[in-house]
Amino acid sequence: MTVIRDAGDSALAEELFAILKERTGDGVGITRESYGERESLALDIVEAKARALGLATERDAGANLVVTLQGTEPDLPFLACGSHLDSVPQGGNFDGAAGVIAGLAILARFKQEGFRPRRTLKLYALRGEESARFGRAYMGSSALFGGLTPADLAVKDEVTGRTLAECMRDVGVDIERVERGEPLLDASRVAGWVELHIEQGPVLVARELPIGIVTGIRGNIRHRSVECVGEPGHSGAIPRWLRRDAVFAAAELITHLDRHWRTLLERGRDVVVTSGVFGTDPQEHAIARIPGMVRFSFEVRSQSQRTIDAFYDLFLSECRLVAEERGVEFLLDRKLETAPASMDAIWIERLKRAARNLGLPDEEIPSGAGHDSAVFANAGIPSAMIFVRNEHGSHNPHEAMDIDDFIAGIAVMRQAIREAVE
Amino acid sequence: MTVIRDAGDSALAEELFAILKERTGDGVGITRESYGERESLALDIVEAKARALGLATERDAGANLVVTLQGTEPDLPFLACGSHLDSVPQGGNFDGAAGVIAGLAILARFKQEGFRPRRTLKLYALRGEESARFGRAYMGSSALFGGLTPADLAVKDEVTGRTLAECMRDVGVDIERVERGEPLLDASRVAGWVELHIEQGPVLVARELPIGIVTGIRGNIRHRSVECVGEPGHSGAIPRWLRRDAVFAAAELITHLDRHWRTLLERGRDVVVTSGVFGTDPQEHAIARIPGMVRFSFEVRSQSQRTIDAFYDLFLSECRLVAEERGVEFLLDRKLETAPASMDAIWIERLKRAARNLGLPDEEIPSGAGHDSAVFANAGIPSAMIFVRNEHGSHNPHEAMDIDDFIAGIAVMRQAIREAVE
Repeated sequence: MTVIRDAGDSALAEELFAILKERTGDGVGITRESYGERESLALDIVEAKARALGLATERDAGANLVVTLQGTEPDLPFLACGSHLDSVPQGGNFDGAAGVIAGLAILARFKQEGFRPRRTLKLYALRGEESARFGRAYMGSSALFGGLTPADLAVKDEVTGRTLAECMRDVGVDIERVERGEPLLDASRVAGWVELHIEQGPVLVARELPIGIVTGIRGNIRHRSVECVGEPGHSGAIPRWLRRDAVFAAAELITHLDRHWRTLLERGRDVVVTSGVFGTDPQEHAIARIPGMVRFSFEVRSQSQRTIDAFYDLFLSECRLVAEERGVEFLLDRKLETAPASMDAIWIERLKRAARNLGLPDEEIPSGAGHDSAVFANAGIPSAMIFVRNEHGSHNPHEAMDIDDFIAGIAVMRQAIREAVE
Repeated sequence: MTVIRDAGDSALAEELFAILKERTGDGVGITRESYGERESLALDIVEAKARALGLATERDAGANLVVTLQGTEPDLPFLACGSHLDSVPQGGNFDGAAGVIAGLAILARFKQEGFRPRRTLKLYALRGEESARFGRAYMGSSALFGGLTPADLAVKDEVTGRTLAECMRDVGVDIERVERGEPLLDASRVAGWVELHIEQGPVLVARELPIGIVTGIRGNIRHRSVECVGEPGHSGAIPRWLRRDAVFAAAELITHLDRHWRTLLERGRDVVVTSGVFGTDPQEHAIARIPGMVRFSFEVRSQSQRTIDAFYDLFLSECRLVAEERGVEFLLDRKLETAPASMDAIWIERLKRAARNLGLPDEEIPSGAGHDSAVFANAGIPSAMIFVRNEHGSHNPHEAMDIDDFIAGIAVMRQAIREAVE
């Protein structure tokens, strides 16, 4: 297997990952809260480095960091690249940041080499990609295309009780425009979007591939919070037939969903189901009390909108069945939807060609996880993604990307972008 | 149905319940933390009233409140009555307190009437009956008979991080004696124990009985915390066959336990199963992260030790099966056991006779919930309980005891005690 060497890219990557880890670490992993303090700090760190490299920087109306390499024909639609800088709580250092650093390495090299592209090239260090804080993912890219609804903006962070709108305003977003649903970026002015990201699944590791070219991105339906409401009572004194136990009911629901999931997989459908947040109420639960309420999140993802919708119907139907059987009630909060997306065929070919030119494998891979690229693609912008091999998944402190693989990903991306802007 | 009128008992009960509610309410229900501030406050309230009624009071080495009516033959073993004054968080005002107020009403009337019993009669307002704070129930009565182990005493309250031993010392318990396992009360000096308590189940309401005479008390096995440990990961990127999802695993375990429970009930066994505390870790859970850990409590109760042990074996065996199937691990904390107990046959007859004399039903009823009476009985003291009808169960703010039923219970208890101490 070819190993790409690039001392400049390596040095930049190692320096920036180290600073980000040091300044946005939380003792266990990395925490860069969407539209929060440590996300802002990460933007500041990257901006300082971009300026030190002689690049022009600004914050756009969405309070994202934009680094620009001016083209010789500035009236042409520009090419954008980048990724996000926020993270889940106790997450990893590479999820998001790798794509921003890759973009910076590319712009820096072009600048250093005196390469003047025809099209302007912009690096976006986006905010608010992760759903951990507000339930809604891709907030930063969605805001760019006027895609945040009043309901999205009214969601409160559970820790601080502040709404998304308030937190966006705090970091400098032009919230009035966002609230009006006004695009902050004219999609027709964007010639394309390229994002490098660590693979968050185990496929590249299992198949021993340093990088992969993404074909499409799973969409999802989510509920941030489903409340299963039963009736509390003394755990010793109420017989089974008189119980309305919220934990037994929710456990049965999950077990039924698992059965449907297995069936769909056996029928060849692409689908994953998760209840990442699940719990009785710490204010009232007790070992000797039948739990009267349990709150949980629900998420189904698939590359097929049809499969997402079909599984969601099964979920609703199982809620009704369990509710009837066990005398509980399921109260669903707002349904959050993200459409699946396809990557641009021309860009897929361009990236595969670059990989082959560099002696690297040009394997295609679907993305199980969602990405800002899905929002760019669904806004009509030809979009592309490169995955970099990474162990232990992401959204945890143990994600592990080999720097050699990262350098390979940057090289492929640099060559493809150069071809597209020159 | 006979209704017992007793203006004195009614006035005392209404006064004390009102003060307790006002001073130990939490806005939703009642919170009197075991070996905590509001439990102490409840003891102070009852002690002040006892003194105002001319009764002698003291705190014993277990920091319980003891109200004494001296007998004419003080060398005879004394008769004890009472209940506990602590509560679960957001619990009800009657669970425990009713038995203390009933005892006070009886001693107060004897004192007021100038009745001098042969045997000394003592009312115990016990601490620490509820397991909500330290996982262990009947701490106050267990301490009296040297039954708290070093492991019990080392358990930490989850909110303050303080151990049971520290909290006991704070309220004045002679902790060195407790730590040595030394009885604080000589069981051979106690002629009997009588406890009035609200029924925490729905039986008396369903059968339209104001009171019931308890025959036996369910024992239990508990784990305060079972950890199901899987592996966290990105919810979109990891396929089902590579997941080690702690919520799906724990849900399957609960669903299997439910199936075994139904089978045992169909075979006529007495058993209830509860997981009152259940949840992913708020420090690391997220909607888009496969939950790597879920922590839950486990409890099985039965009047039969054999059934308790058999169900516990099923629980362990299901933990092993689910662990193997799903690649998770179940880590069990210390196993807590409380033996079932039988009430004293002579006392049961005495209480039934008193009920009949007063024109009240003399129905027997088993206790689904555990009580301090089980500890007294298992210490070899002839013990008895009267249940008072109560709606909506207990361990919740909606428990509802009719004052007429309470007065009837006091009347039966007073007559039986008078017969026993005369």
